[in-house]
Amino acid sequence: MDLQLPKSEYPRVVIVGGGFGGIELAKRLKNKPFQVVMLDKHNYHTFQPLLYQVATGGLEADSIAFPLRKIFKGQKNLIFRVTKVTEVNAAENCLQTDIGRINYDYLVIATGSTSNFFGNKEIEANAMPMKSIPEALDLRSLILQNFEKSLIEKDVHKKSALLNFVVVGGGPTGVETSGAIAELKKHVIPNDYPEMDFSKVNIYLIENSPELLGVMSPQAQKKAKDFLTDMGVQIMNETRVLGYDGHTLTLQDKAPILSSTVIWSAGVKGQVLAGLDKAEVVRGGRLKTDTQNLVVGYQNVYAIGDVAAIIDEETPNGHPGVAPAAIQQGHHLAKNLINIKENKPLEKFKYFDKGSMATVGRNKAVVDIGKIRFQGVFAWFTWMFVHLMTLVGFRNKIIVFVNWVWSYFSYDRGTRLIIRTFAKDRSVDYRDEVPAVKEEVKVS
Amino acid sequence: MDLQLPKSEYPRVVIVGGGFGGIELAKRLKNKPFQVVMLDKHNYHTFQPLLYQVATGGLEADSIAFPLRKIFKGQKNLIFRVTKVTEVNAAENCLQTDIGRINYDYLVIATGSTSNFFGNKEIEANAMPMKSIPEALDLRSLILQNFEKSLIEKDVHKKSALLNFVVVGGGPTGVETSGAIAELKKHVIPNDYPEMDFSKVNIYLIENSPELLGVMSPQAQKKAKDFLTDMGVQIMNETRVLGYDGHTLTLQDKAPILSSTVIWSAGVKGQVLAGLDKAEVVRGGRLKTDTQNLVVGYQNVYAIGDVAAIIDEETPNGHPGVAPAAIQQGHHLAKNLINIKENKPLEKFKYFDKGSMATVGRNKAVVDIGKIRFQGVFAWFTWMFVHLMTLVGFRNKIIVFVNWVWSYFSYDRGTRLIIRTFAKDRSVDYRDEVPAVKEEVKVS
Repeated sequence: MDLQLPKSEYPRVVIVGGGFGGIELAKRLKNKPFQVVMLDKHNYHTFQPLLYQVATGGLEADSIAFPLRKIFKGQKNLIFRVTKVTEVNAAENCLQTDIGRINYDYLVIATGSTSNFFGNKEIEANAMPMKSIPEALDLRSLILQNFEKSLIEKDVHKKSALLNFVVVGGGPTGVETSGAIAELKKHVIPNDYPEMDFSKVNIYLIENSPELLGVMSPQAQKKAKDFLTDMGVQIMNETRVLGYDGHTLTLQDKAPILSSTVIWSAGVKGQVLAGLDKAEVVRGGRLKTDTQNLVVGYQNVYAIGDVAAIIDEETPNGHPGVAPAAIQQGHHLAKNLINIKENKPLEKFKYFDKGSMATVGRNKAVVDIGKIRFQGVFAWFTWMFVHLMTLVGFRNKIIVFVNWVWSYFSYDRGTRLIIRTFAKDRSVDYRDEVPAVKEEVKVS
Repeated sequence: MDLQLPKSEYPRVVIVGGGFGGIELAKRLKNKPFQVVMLDKHNYHTFQPLLYQVATGGLEADSIAFPLRKIFKGQKNLIFRVTKVTEVNAAENCLQTDIGRINYDYLVIATGSTSNFFGNKEIEANAMPMKSIPEALDLRSLILQNFEKSLIEKDVHKKSALLNFVVVGGGPTGVETSGAIAELKKHVIPNDYPEMDFSKVNIYLIENSPELLGVMSPQAQKKAKDFLTDMGVQIMNETRVLGYDGHTLTLQDKAPILSSTVIWSAGVKGQVLAGLDKAEVVRGGRLKTDTQNLVVGYQNVYAIGDVAAIIDEETPNGHPGVAPAAIQQGHHLAKNLINIKENKPLEKFKYFDKGSMATVGRNKAVVDIGKIRFQGVFAWFTWMFVHLMTLVGFRNKIIVFVNWVWSYFSYDRGTRLIIRTFAKDRSVDYRDEVPAVKEEVKVS
């Protein structure tokens, strides 16, 4: 059954995903001769770089998310629908969604990435991912529930598992998350849990490769390691995780770790839509595209952002899965779609690397911008400034700023609420994010 | 099995419930010769008067809740546990909880109230209550999901049901909620849903009795009615709700209303604990107490706040179920417990009525303070000031203030996120608020 959408004389661009890339593209097509249809399974945009602060009680979920409808307020050529795309039917230029079939003239896949468990079903079932707001809130609940449970647990092994927090993956997310848990341990636990022997709280950061922050400069890598070590995080480099059954984390050639909280930030993969079987999926589950973001094998299907890999001589592995790359690709694709409409020649995508940064804790961050590298307090303020500026929405900027100022002076983290009670037995229900209600309205 | 708690030479006061009354009592016992054990099923205190703003996208959940552990920071004679009390065994001076048995010398029931469906199971299963953070977030999600669904619904009856919002109960909560939905309709829908014919959005406020705000002055009642009518709320006084199957609201002697969103604010009842079968439960499901808040029939079991009814010649129906009454009873009981310890005579509780107020919308509120009655802009600022001052936590005050200032100037409501996808089929799982995980930690 076709989804009814307002009619338009212009070609229809369907964008799947309201992340950085999708939003940039849609906004750049404002007042242009296209009908833009934006689809997302949520009604909001998620500012993923700050999810870890939601998960560790530093920020409220609502301050790092922004209603998608509000982003496109006043954009007359845009239609937004909350839905999940179930399949692409490229032969017929249409999408199947859970609210009906949608035809397109141009399809843009901007679905981003999801946690990559590298095929390990046991880890996938038991470790905590942190790629969406509901997942971050579940993790926050789990951390707090485990603190509460540790107080009443008599068995020493079980108690130890409840107080061992393991972060797997030493990229920016893993570094930031383990640092944030270390700050919870230092500043919040002694106040909140005076009965707890907080020397028993252990934070492990496990990374397969010899260094943390693989993409950054050696200076940044070393400094991040020093910062984390000072904060009490136990860094385990060159350590391979074999399995996790919800209680015991098994490692290659090393003793297992008992833990009730394993946070998985060891990798991501593109969220490829079903039905695109002709497309080449390259390393990291990304769709291979040409330098115009056209998916290889298709005429009118594009991919941008984390789900796309522009494979070229200069970029044999595509571009990094970061917000600036997605935004630049969205911007660039908008220009090219307009070029197509105006029969102008297409331009090749050029990535402008804005650098990379990671925060470790209070007054501690590392920044690489081209050849410029700095760490410490100034890096931390730079990190905060850049994130505040990138955050969508003026209200959100203020709320996040207030929270940061508050935390800075009080050493506190304000949002320690268990509002989505996390229960592993019901994880499927709890993690399900798609509006699943099928209501029959009886007419009397 | 007994719950292990730190030993103490002092008598143990167990307080069940971290609402206004329980917190006040616990704080007043700081540095006094008692061991205070506070139990709550949540790890946070909920500021119930602002739940309706969470449900209608005006405030984030985290800004009206406050971690209970933080409230009692530094109070050495207090132990807090997240748990659900399953039964009172007064003969043995102990409580059964889902984390073990707890003995008490004095038991204080401060469990507050819950929605009263007056025995109608059909309404209970289908209408939306709004007495806790998870319920308010579920309601927010339902309202937003119904807006989204209305866009794709082709059947006119179903579409109409999705856009008919019914609030049952014309007390302060019902007045405030229907007013907030009317503001969503006026300021948010036209921007967010340009495709929607928002003249089809109807808001009904249904009340059994001839007036709204039964406890307030005739001036306040009339003005609230005028305000709501101006804002487009359809007020139906002297209307009795018979049933609601999730789709059709059946009324006595009136045509039924098709609605997918029925919000229940028609009454509350005390959350009486199981096992107190000797106690007299009076109207509204409250525990009958004497003027020292001692539950009738017991020697060392007290009740304060919404769950308590001090039945006396002067107060044949007890005191109103409002925050000031709970706080005053908590304060008073603390004094009496100390009096008992010091063998001093006990004092009788005297209620000081601080007045009542309700907000209807922007610049519109009604206030009664004794003989002083005013309505309109100044009443609205008074309402906001009083609520900001009563809100627990400095961070929360700032965040709520920022949100209100933001909404005032932007006519916007910032937190329109569907973060707890609401599905009626799974309502039991989703509404369950008790930490339900029973994990077995395998020791390798």
